[in-house]
Order: sequence, then C-alpha cells, then structure tokens
Amino acid sequence: MPIESPEPHDVRMRGFLQRTPVADVTSWMRASLQPLASETVSVVDAAGRVLVNPISSEVNVPGFARAMMDGYALQAADTSGASTYNPLSLQVVGESLPGQPSAACVAAGQAIRIMTGAPLPGGADAVLPVELVQIGAEQISVLSETSPGKHVAAVGEDIAVGAAVLAPGRRLRPQDIGVLASIGVAQVDVVRRVHVRIVVTGNELLPPGSRPQGTQIVDSNSPMLAALIRRDGGVALNPGIVPDDPPQIREALVDDVDVVLVSGGSSVGQEDHAPRLLAEAGELTIHGIAMRPSSPTGIGRLGNRWVFLLPGNPVSCLCAYDFFAGPAIRMLGGGHWEWPYRSCRRRLRRKIASAIGRVDYARVRVVDDEIEPLAISGASMLSSTTRADGFVIIPQDSEGYAEGTELELFLYDA
Amino acid sequence: MPIESPEPHDVRMRGFLQRTPVADVTSWMRASLQPLASETVSVVDAAGRVLVNPISSEVNVPGFARAMMDGYALQAADTSGASTYNPLSLQVVGESLPGQPSAACVAAGQAIRIMTGAPLPGGADAVLPVELVQIGAEQISVLSETSPGKHVAAVGEDIAVGAAVLAPGRRLRPQDIGVLASIGVAQVDVVRRVHVRIVVTGNELLPPGSRPQGTQIVDSNSPMLAALIRRDGGVALNPGIVPDDPPQIREALVDDVDVVLVSGGSSVGQEDHAPRLLAEAGELTIHGIAMRPSSPTGIGRLGNRWVFLLPGNPVSCLCAYDFFAGPAIRMLGGGHWEWPYRSCRRRLRRKIASAIGRVDYARVRVVDDEIEPLAISGASMLSSTTRADGFVIIPQDSEGYAEGTELELFLYDA
Repeated sequence: MPIESPEPHDVRMRGFLQRTPVADVTSWMRASLQPLASETVSVVDAAGRVLVNPISSEVNVPGFARAMMDGYALQAADTSGASTYNPLSLQVVGESLPGQPSAACVAAGQAIRIMTGAPLPGGADAVLPVELVQIGAEQISVLSETSPGKHVAAVGEDIAVGAAVLAPGRRLRPQDIGVLASIGVAQVDVVRRVHVRIVVTGNELLPPGSRPQGTQIVDSNSPMLAALIRRDGGVALNPGIVPDDPPQIREALVDDVDVVLVSGGSSVGQEDHAPRLLAEAGELTIHGIAMRPSSPTGIGRLGNRWVFLLPGNPVSCLCAYDFFAGPAIRMLGGGHWEWPYRSCRRRLRRKIASAIGRVDYARVRVVDDEIEPLAISGASMLSSTTRADGFVIIPQDSEGYAEGTELELFLYDA
Repeated sequence: MPIESPEPHDVRMRGFLQRTPVADVTSWMRASLQPLASETVSVVDAAGRVLVNPISSEVNVPGFARAMMDGYALQAADTSGASTYNPLSLQVVGESLPGQPSAACVAAGQAIRIMTGAPLPGGADAVLPVELVQIGAEQISVLSETSPGKHVAAVGEDIAVGAAVLAPGRRLRPQDIGVLASIGVAQVDVVRRVHVRIVVTGNELLPPGSRPQGTQIVDSNSPMLAALIRRDGGVALNPGIVPDDPPQIREALVDDVDVVLVSGGSSVGQEDHAPRLLAEAGELTIHGIAMRPSSPTGIGRLGNRWVFLLPGNPVSCLCAYDFFAGPAIRMLGGGHWEWPYRSCRRRLRRKIASAIGRVDYARVRVVDDEIEPLAISGASMLSSTTRADGFVIIPQDSEGYAEGTELELFLYDA
C-alpha cells in the first residue's frame, strides 16, 4: 500500500499558509517586467511589432513637387481673368506622367498635360484640374482662374527631411508600415517576440486530438495556452506532455525561452513537483494567491525566465493565465498589461456572492443586454467559459454585488 | 508630342458622371457576400477560425467520477456525527492518483487517500478535504461530516454525451480549443482563409525597402495592405509591383484568389487601366463613390473573385480598404462587417466641416480626452494617419459638426 510517510508532503498538503493578494502580485510584476531586447525585422514584416528606436525621415515626401489632380500644369498668372465667359487659350507642349516626367518646361502661354502623382514640370506653379479646361488638339481653353501652388503637393509637404515620424514604444499600425516604406526604411528594430515554453505535466493525460477512454483525460490546457500566447504576440513552444517525473520537469523549466508556463502539479499536493523544483533551481516568489479560481498559482524566476505555475483545472488555468502570465507576455513583448478584452458597463440581472479577502473571476452571459452570472465555482468546468460571453471581477474587499448593480463586463470575443 | 486623341479617354477624364452613395455600396455588398467554403484543420491550429458545423460531444467530461479536492474518498454515511470534538476513525486502504486509480474499493469504515483529479474509487461516494482530517499512519480521524457527492465531479457534469458544445459561425476562442480537445475532437471544419492578391501598379514605383531618388516613389500601399489583410484574417499575396501595362494587369486580375485589391490606376485618367480591364473581363459594378477621400474607388466581380480598385493615394487607399475591402475579407472569412477598431464617444474640440452628399473620413487626434480634427483633405498625406489617433465619420446628409458635439471616435490602436 503506497501510503508515504506524513513528512514532508503532508505538511504541504495542508494548503497554503498564506495567500498573496492579487493587487500585491500585480504591482510586484508590473514593477519587475521590462520589454525584451530588440531584433531587426524587414519593414514589410513589422506590423504589430513594437518599435524600439525613434524613426525620423532621411528623405522628403513627396521628394518632388507633384500634381494632386489630373489636369494641366501651367503658370497661375496665365489664368488671370479666365472664366467660362472668358476662356483663355494655352498651348499644350508636353505631358507629365507618374514616373515619366516631361522633358519640356512650361513658359508663359503654355501648359503641360499632367496626371495625378506626376512631377510638376519646370516653369509651372499650379495644376488646373481637367474639369476646368476645354480640350483642343494642341491647345486648351482655360475656364477658371487658379493661384500658385494650387493642386500641387510641395516637396516635403507630407514628411520633411529630419521630421520625427514614429516614437519608440509604438505598436506599428498598417499605415505606419506604409509611412516607413515611403521614407525608404528597409528594416526596423522592434522588441523581440516572447518565446514561451508550455510544460503540461500529468501521467493521466493524452495529447490533444486523442479520444479519451476510461480514466484518461485529454490535455486541453496546452492547446488553449498556445492560442492565448499567440493572441498575446508570443511564440508558443509545446513539444508534448511531460511525465510527472521531477528530472524531466526540471529539464523543461530550463528550456531556452523567456517564459515558462507549467500547467498542472502547481499546488501543494503529493504529485505537485513544480513548486519545489522551481524553488530549488530558481525563486518561487509567489505561491498561493487570494483569488477564486486559480488560488494555487505560483510565480517565480529562473535565470532570466519568468515561470508561471498554473493550476491544472482548465478554468483556473485560463484565469491564472489571463491575470498573470498573459500580462507578463504582453509587457515583455513591449505591450501593455491591460486585458485584450473589450469591456463595457452593464446591469447585473441577479446578485453575485463573493467572499471578502479574495478576488473572484465570475463567468457571465449577456441576456437582454444585462449580465447574467454563470457558475462562480467549478474550476474544472471549462464548458462554463465557452457558454459564457465574458466575465466580471469581484474585488477582494467586496462581498459581491446586488441585482441591478452596474458592473464592468469583459467580453471574450474581441 | 504624345498627346492622344481626345476620344475615348478624355471623356473618361471628365470625372465620374455619378457617384454611388456609401450606404448603397454597403447594402449591396452585405447582401452579396457569403462566407467561403470550409477546410479541415487540426484542433490545435483552429483558434480564431470560424466553425462551419455544429459540434456536439461524443464523450462525457469528466469521463469518470473524480475528486475535486485533495483528501480522502469515503462513504459519506461514515462521517455522520464527526466533529473536532468527536473525531471518527477510518482505515486507509489505498491511494488514488490522477491516471493511477486505486485497485482497492472503499467499504464501510474505510477511506482511500485521493488527489484532485483522481478517479473516485468504487464504494466511495464523497471526498473529504485533507483539511478536515487528522492523518495517522494507516488510519485517519475524520473531523467533519460530509454528504454524498461532495467534492466529487460526476460523470458528464462538465459536458454530457450528446450535448451541443459549439454552434456554427463561432469564432473559436482559446478556451473553445480546450473544450474541443477535452471531448476528443482532432479536427474541425472552419471557413477557409481568404486569399487576397495585391496588385500595385505604377511605373514610377520602387519596391518597399528601397530608398527613393528624384521622381521615384516607394510603394507604400502594398505593405500597408498586406498588414491590413493579415489583421482581417486573410492571406496576403503580393508578388511585386505590376507595370502600367494592360496585359500584365489583366493577368494579375485573374490570379487564383478570392479577392483582388488593385492599388493605383483606379480613377478615370489616361493611365487608369484597371477599371476598363475589369469591366471587359468581368463586372465593374461600382465606380465612383460619394465619399472623401477614396471617391475613385471601384468594386466588381471577376468569376468568383471580388475585385476592389483602390485609389493610389495612400490615405484614400487605407480609407477605401477599411470601408469596403476589409469588411468583404472579414465576411468572406466568416466574420463580421464591423470595423476592428475600438470606438468610444467623445466631444469635438473644434468644428468639422463637410459637404452634403458625401461621407467624410476625418483623421483626428485625442487631446485632453476630446476629439481634435486633423486635415480632412490631403489624401496623399499618409503621415496624417500616423499622427492621428483615429478617425470620425461624417455622414452623407451632414454638413459637419459644431464644436462640442459628441461623436463616435474610432481608434486606430486596438
């Protein structure tokens, strides 16, 4: 009968002596997390990445005076007095197309046909739109006055040489990539992608895609965590389920990554090796957090790695990821702590009870545009997070909320 | 002198005879767009994809009665009357670990040590948490009463055989992937990714990463469009700049894709081949839209492809993409028309003027939590979209908004 001696694991099985408040964990983490070092990427691959260095322009955009309309390049003075009742005739002496400037220049009494985006020919100071012109074979009749600079983009009008274009910390938008390309930038330095090793332990687990039989369970946490990591901009590495074997878990903890997520075996029970292994090899800073679910969560460091010990129960695993691991991955990647969930304020249809002294993560549905709580317990009921539309947070100092209270609702769908 | 005959292009150069209202374009598109066919993907790669078929479970989760706490599996009746003042003794006859069920059964007067997640042994009907037990070498003292089913997850309690789990049209969340794995699903049918060919035309253009000289311009639209397409879940294909040469443009239009985006040459000018080529080979349904910028936008069909003729001016290109091409790509991919921008209501610091009869896309900054308009014109000023924090829309029937008006603000950063 494999009953072991009551020491030391039975002491550990007694539960956590003390649970750290969520706010304390959060403020410690926020103070400690710094973006990773930079890497250089091609500008065409840089969308969504976070810029490390300021970008200023080494060129003018546009680099030459260019037409903003299809029409005729001319000297504005030549249009003085022109109207539909007094058309003024100009001789057409050439054509300027984008990439094919006119060799000719515009002298007084002359015009050059020009397309949007084409270089303004020498001598011209304005573009008269084609709508304001009557077109003949080799001449045009000008039907309207114009003024110098009209419908011409001046050199550097969009971006001048030396202008600050983008600041460090910027998450590059699609249009930022356009601007970088337009000023001739080929590569940019961005915060390196966060590499995250998923360590799922459990002798009872089958890999995702398997059909469970008898007392088997399929590993649902690693594919969920991989999706969460990708959502948060990280690179998920998951070479497979790790047996409940201390040497193999220890080896996984020192993988060459920025963050390690251990799922399962995070509590204080007999098969919960990860906390001891982390404490031995590195530092287990936090173990036990005043929240429901996810109270057995552990957080620590091992060399430069952040290590998160996430509960094996799927809902606890999701909740602990979203409270701690996700924000860390986003901040290491140069982003923000804040949740990537859309939030809004809605009325509570039915009271939610909680206990003072812990933060509660309550899955809810939206019914008639109001918040309908689902099960607040049941950390193993992953289906509660698929039936839910989102969640609300009940803070540590609250006993819950009465029906009708307006709360912040976080929606799972972006 | 390469002045061509005034027919037919000069008629076309006169501008659009008629511009279609944005609302008409939108309602036609929404009525016409259907999600693409499905493809089968591994469940671990399915996050963010849109489910095609309903999923119901072929297994129970859990598949066996399991412990929800670390403690002792026992018969609840044996705890009747137990308290710290009246501890009741039970003989420990075995151990049940996750994946390692106990061979022994629990008879009256017996208990089996059990870990969270482990199978409940035969004969037992409850788990007493370890905190409510005093542990001896081969026996325990029970310090509290319990009731049948306590701290035991029943078979199928999370998901029962036959239960509907996820409905068609669902964009799969990380936790959905977890649920699919847990019920033994290996692959799912999801809407196929939308393949989008980018056709950037212009003899004056250099590829992204080049340094512009003289009258050269770097293609900024194709990397911007590629980033937008990826944001919207599509696959961007961009084999390079296409010369202003009708046969080469025609060939690009019939690439084996779902959507073609042509940037540049979309208007009614001499070098604007794309509209004619599309009208000849397929159908140019819309050409000219009552909006600013982006009025030269064209939309049509070519075989099963949707073709969008986007203006070459970068801001117009971005705006036309976000108004028409982006929503189409999202809907073809099984998603929604709506913008992927966060929105909120804010006060306008300064009036915005517009013209009745067209929709305006106005780039704005957020200053002191209010909306500060940037340039509303200047379709070539891509830097306006990097200086801007977002945009507001002025509808067709509005002359603009007075200072102090509360407007919906769309933010570029998600």
